[in-house]
Amino acid sequence: MYPINTWYVAGTPADIQDKPLGRQICGQRMVFFRGADGAPAALEDFCPHRGAALSLGFVRDGQVVCGYHGLAVHSDGRCAHMPMQRVGGFPAIRSFPVVERYGFLWVWPGDPAKADAGLIPNFEWFDSPDWAYGGGLYHIQCDYRLMIDNLMDLTHETYVHATSIGQPEIEESLPTTKVEGEQVVTSRFMENIMAPPFWRAALRGNGLADDVPVDRWQICRFTPPSHVMIEVGVAHAGKGGYNAAPEHKASSIVVDFITPETETSIWYFWGMARNFNVKDAALTETIREGQGKIFAEDLEMLESQQRNLLANPERRILSLNIDAGGVQSRRILDRIMKEEQGAHAVA
Amino acid sequence: MYPINTWYVAGTPADIQDKPLGRQICGQRMVFFRGADGAPAALEDFCPHRGAALSLGFVRDGQVVCGYHGLAVHSDGRCAHMPMQRVGGFPAIRSFPVVERYGFLWVWPGDPAKADAGLIPNFEWFDSPDWAYGGGLYHIQCDYRLMIDNLMDLTHETYVHATSIGQPEIEESLPTTKVEGEQVVTSRFMENIMAPPFWRAALRGNGLADDVPVDRWQICRFTPPSHVMIEVGVAHAGKGGYNAAPEHKASSIVVDFITPETETSIWYFWGMARNFNVKDAALTETIREGQGKIFAEDLEMLESQQRNLLANPERRILSLNIDAGGVQSRRILDRIMKEEQGAHAVA
Amino acid sequence: MYPINTWYVAGTPADIQDKPLGRQICGQRMVFFRGADGAPAALEDFCPHRGAALSLGFVRDGQVVCGYHGLAVHSDGRCAHMPMQRVGGFPAIRSFPVVERYGFLWVWPGDPAKADAGLIPNFEWFDSPDWAYGGGLYHIQCDYRLMIDNLMDLTHETYVHATSIGQPEIEESLPTTKVEGEQVVTSRFMENIMAPPFWRAALRGNGLADDVPVDRWQICRFTPPSHVMIEVGVAHAGKGGYNAAPEHKASSIVVDFITPETETSIWYFWGMARNFNVKDAALTETIREGQGKIFAEDLEMLESQQRNLLANPERRILSLNIDAGGVQSRRILDRIMKEEQGAHAVA
Repeated sequence: MYPINTWYVAGTPADIQDKPLGRQICGQRMVFFRGADGAPAALEDFCPHRGAALSLGFVRDGQVVCGYHGLAVHSDGRCAHMPMQRVGGFPAIRSFPVVERYGFLWVWPGDPAKADAGLIPNFEWFDSPDWAYGGGLYHIQCDYRLMIDNLMDLTHETYVHATSIGQPEIEESLPTTKVEGEQVVTSRFMENIMAPPFWRAALRGNGLADDVPVDRWQICRFTPPSHVMIEVGVAHAGKGGYNAAPEHKASSIVVDFITPETETSIWYFWGMARNFNVKDAALTETIREGQGKIFAEDLEMLESQQRNLLANPERRILSLNIDAGGVQSRRILDRIMKEEQGAHAVA
Repeated sequence: MYPINTWYVAGTPADIQDKPLGRQICGQRMVFFRGADGAPAALEDFCPHRGAALSLGFVRDGQVVCGYHGLAVHSDGRCAHMPMQRVGGFPAIRSFPVVERYGFLWVWPGDPAKADAGLIPNFEWFDSPDWAYGGGLYHIQCDYRLMIDNLMDLTHETYVHATSIGQPEIEESLPTTKVEGEQVVTSRFMENIMAPPFWRAALRGNGLADDVPVDRWQICRFTPPSHVMIEVGVAHAGKGGYNAAPEHKASSIVVDFITPETETSIWYFWGMARNFNVKDAALTETIREGQGKIFAEDLEMLESQQRNLLANPERRILSLNIDAGGVQSRRILDRIMKEEQGAHAVA
Repeated sequence: MYPINTWYVAGTPADIQDKPLGRQICGQRMVFFRGADGAPAALEDFCPHRGAALSLGFVRDGQVVCGYHGLAVHSDGRCAHMPMQRVGGFPAIRSFPVVERYGFLWVWPGDPAKADAGLIPNFEWFDSPDWAYGGGLYHIQCDYRLMIDNLMDLTHETYVHATSIGQPEIEESLPTTKVEGEQVVTSRFMENIMAPPFWRAALRGNGLADDVPVDRWQICRFTPPSHVMIEVGVAHAGKGGYNAAPEHKASSIVVDFITPETETSIWYFWGMARNFNVKDAALTETIREGQGKIFAEDLEMLESQQRNLLANPERRILSLNIDAGGVQSRRILDRIMKEEQGAHAVA
């Protein structure tokens, strides 16, 4: 169960640079490519001629051409051309609204009439020269909500990421969770602690001493359907913490776009945006590699959880204080899905 | 859905030279071996003793011996011997009519009473010293009819095989399709064109200039249930084309035997028979390797098509002019399967 | 179908030396670890917090700690501790009786109230300094009863293990099968034969001539639910056979503990106990390697049998003289399972 009248991240512009991209989103195989106007397009990955996957073909003049018999399809799903054939009577295939923004391709798998690019959340720092970004993509066999739970409760860092970003002080400081409209914010502040290895490296990367006490913060923001942005950072202790001046801190935003592939698998777009040393491409790559290793540590755990929940469908699990972020996020999702189904029932 | 009262290619004599061959045909696991009379035999691959696969055993004196406890089975399915046991009361296992012809093993998965070796199509050139043959076997996850479609419409060469046998002129010349009894023939003739790479090599292999215009032909013949022979060739332009004298052309027959393994997987026996330089074994191997690479290019496309059709069972696809060969072939198959089911209902 | 109110071998102490062991037994994922009292413990492999696999975590002070958020669970399944949480109201998870004996961990997957360590069969030689033991574990895709059949009928050695322990004389001497209470004993004695390769090596390993005739024996003992101990050996011919004095023979006990993972897969603990040269660790390892190779030869056969039986559920197979051991063992199992179901129906 996932909302469909909403925007999900489907990929990046690089994915469609040389050839079409085939990717299943919300149970629907889609082909992504760049149309004649240069804008990205998303269609069913199903050639109306004989059912082959269009993503195995190529792009010519902004049309995706089936690699089997050469049927070319416009970016709106209408058939454009086929050798020695009149295609006027050919059925169009379904197209999906798609928008390029923040360095990603965003797709709307539901009712196109409701698609509104204005509904894509505002992550203004993506387009700011004051920020640098690096990230990657993981394919994980779990319900997208298990990943939301994971990200809205960072006490797991103490255990899953014990050698990099975890530290006992995380689980010793209770987070607070607030619901702000359709957003959920879970915050945790730790004062006068020693930074763990990842943050020591970040302090050094920002030209700061790494062997002195720091204040550390984690502010997780859930935006439906499945975007979680986490402000994380450390400042030399006593300099104002989260509000410290830039020269006293190293901070960044953990970026998480979670896109359901099926009911029990996801495309997990992870990354980090930082606002220090933003021109240092080597640092971007170093951080990206480090984050990639850390985030890979979650995979086995999430997949074990999914297996256990599938094998025990009737079983209740607990919702503790630390789970409040995930619980509140799921409440918002439940309301959105209920509204979608109600609208569907009326229509 | 496939006919079962018919002959399919199951393998080659080499497959049963040293040991039994286990292969699933039309949903039935079978074991193939050579019986006491030297003729090939086909039985259920199921030992009547404890159900082990007979194909894991060995052949002794024309009996297949189970590799578990030594039950030996005659080539007609009757139990022949077991250490310290009387096997007179043991149940026989099912045997399938099997015939060795044209360098292949042909099996009849349906009613043995209807099996008639005379129904195996006549491919006389297989037994002629004027022809040389080389081929191979692919296992593909698709309905056998998708492969028939593929072979009865060679416009796909332009796209799938663009670098070897494809050329734009193929899709620019419409084929004609005729039904002749139970055969379907789709023909395409192209005149005064330059030969693509595969045919340039074939011209050279036949001692002919490869840099002059040629006439090219493709004549696809479907014979039920799933045999497609394709006469292909090029002749120096103006020498008579298909009917040119041998010294002006390079021609061959593409051989395709398609055997259902299950409803959605096939054993695809492909090969090429040629009537020039037939004693040149190195040329046979060169052609075989080239064809193997070219035919492997179809696999991904066919499997994507199968996945898409399974995921969209209700969906109609198109039947265009170029698809006439496949459409007519399927009509013949539908009629044969309807007759089989009618016969079954009466019986 | 398998009994559950009984003891199965789940693993060895080495499996839980450094970290918890996750293993599915009788359809239930379990986590094994050593509790505060040093005794082994077995729990559902399901964290009551969010359903993650506890076996991905670690052991601290005799509690298994979830690697996701740190919930610690006592060896009896009660929640012990979680950072910043009161766990008094947390639901306990299911625990399974488990006993360490004979160098193995034994688990009782059924009703704990009925678990009685006294029901573990008595294999006194495991604890005797006069015996040495080496063994291993295989995972096989078959019903546990197919492995019992395999071990209670050693005529298969002639075929499956032709190059090591098989010899024609096995199938030429009929075994006798007796039921003794809940045990089944199948015995075979062969006199004045030449020893096969494995036993020649064993004779040499015991300082005995290997090129003289021997008497050979195989005594298979089935104890429910799925333990098969096989006394095997050879003695120089005419020295009393099975009852020969130790200086004339090489003998050992083949140890087989078969534990259902699911209805169609098993954990197969195999090994060999011998009472000659027991301090020769190199000989133990040589025998273990040899046995491992021999026993691996059964896997493909058993899995082919399982595939065939699943594909032909209605099909009857034969029960011959040589199958009597397996047949009688299955009768005992059927009665035990019927009693379990009856008890369940009443309760």
